[in-house]
Amino acid sequence: MGRTSDAREKILGAAHSLIELRGYSALGVAEICKAAGVPKGSFYYFFESKEALALAVMDEHWATQLHDWTRILRDDAEPLDRLRRLFEATEARQLAGQQTCGTVSGCLFGNLTLEMSNQTEAIRERLQQIFDVQVDLVDKVIIEAQERGEVGVPDTREAARSVVAQLEGQVLFAKLYNDTRRLAPMWSNTLALLGARPVAH
Amino acid sequence: MGRTSDAREKILGAAHSLIELRGYSALGVAEICKAAGVPKGSFYYFFESKEALALAVMDEHWATQLHDWTRILRDDAEPLDRLRRLFEATEARQLAGQQTCGTVSGCLFGNLTLEMSNQTEAIRERLQQIFDVQVDLVDKVIIEAQERGEVGVPDTREAARSVVAQLEGQVLFAKLYNDTRRLAPMWSNTLALLGARPVAH
Repeated sequence: MGRTSDAREKILGAAHSLIELRGYSALGVAEICKAAGVPKGSFYYFFESKEALALAVMDEHWATQLHDWTRILRDDAEPLDRLRRLFEATEARQLAGQQTCGTVSGCLFGNLTLEMSNQTEAIRERLQQIFDVQVDLVDKVIIEAQERGEVGVPDTREAARSVVAQLEGQVLFAKLYNDTRRLAPMWSNTLALLGARPVAH
Repeated sequence: MGRTSDAREKILGAAHSLIELRGYSALGVAEICKAAGVPKGSFYYFFESKEALALAVMDEHWATQLHDWTRILRDDAEPLDRLRRLFEATEARQLAGQQTCGTVSGCLFGNLTLEMSNQTEAIRERLQQIFDVQVDLVDKVIIEAQERGEVGVPDTREAARSVVAQLEGQVLFAKLYNDTRRLAPMWSNTLALLGARPVAH
């Protein structure tokens, strides 16, 4: 079993890197197995299709990201500070990716949304679930900040959606220009979107 | 010559529809020619590669969009009204696309950015040029509004980038949820990002 689960992890890891680098459509099972260093025949022992593999890559990546987002956004810090730290963590992660791969790879879920959401319903549904949870987590922080009188928005959920949309839009441009400095305005933009009074530090 | 240029237009039209529907990587030249109803042999008479075709599709789409953006943003209307009309036109175009194809196809340039910008430098450069011009056009309107005291931003160009990023982010979610109502907050978000006082109508 040790070797078996090892092969599955190798396939997942190789697929994750390749999907980040080149998207989903451009990949073939043979190429993934070659990069993973596992025999092609073993692929269908672990995954019933390339789509099933993509869903597993998304789930694994989301488990890590959800852990990070929850840790940052459910911290004891002031609500707006937690949002600011989320953006700082996003920028740090994109910068670390750029230093490893040479290019800003962007958001795996944003990439798959624009590449795949109109092609397979299973991937569209999973992406919707993931972004719904992201919006939930941000919404809870906005509600707290609103209760403390630090922000003023007519609809906290719509505001949370706009904050996540701004994040995805800025990450798109960080990827296009291969420049994480594009992410710098996320924080002041979020304050503006939330009608917040900037807190002095 | 009539038939020759007709075949080129047919290939361009079919490629545009297929790229909007399924992205670039998933397509093959044979499929594009079949959809266009032209013999596969004629493809390389018009385009030296699939990448050259993608660039031609982008240029053709951009010529139309640039014409629309210029008409709307260089109009005689009040500056902020012009920005509002740009968002209304974007929403109307996405809704028309949804009614034709059944799904919101999103922004061709945003889609190609997340799918392709890390894969071919020629496509990345063209996309950068296109988004630079979009930001220029929005920036000019923000400068006008700033001169009239209707908005207050420390850096009009950074504000223009954030407005375009918000647009791309909201279009991404309109595509993911196949729902153009996701685009409704673009206008109030832009007012917030620009520190604008909403104008009564």
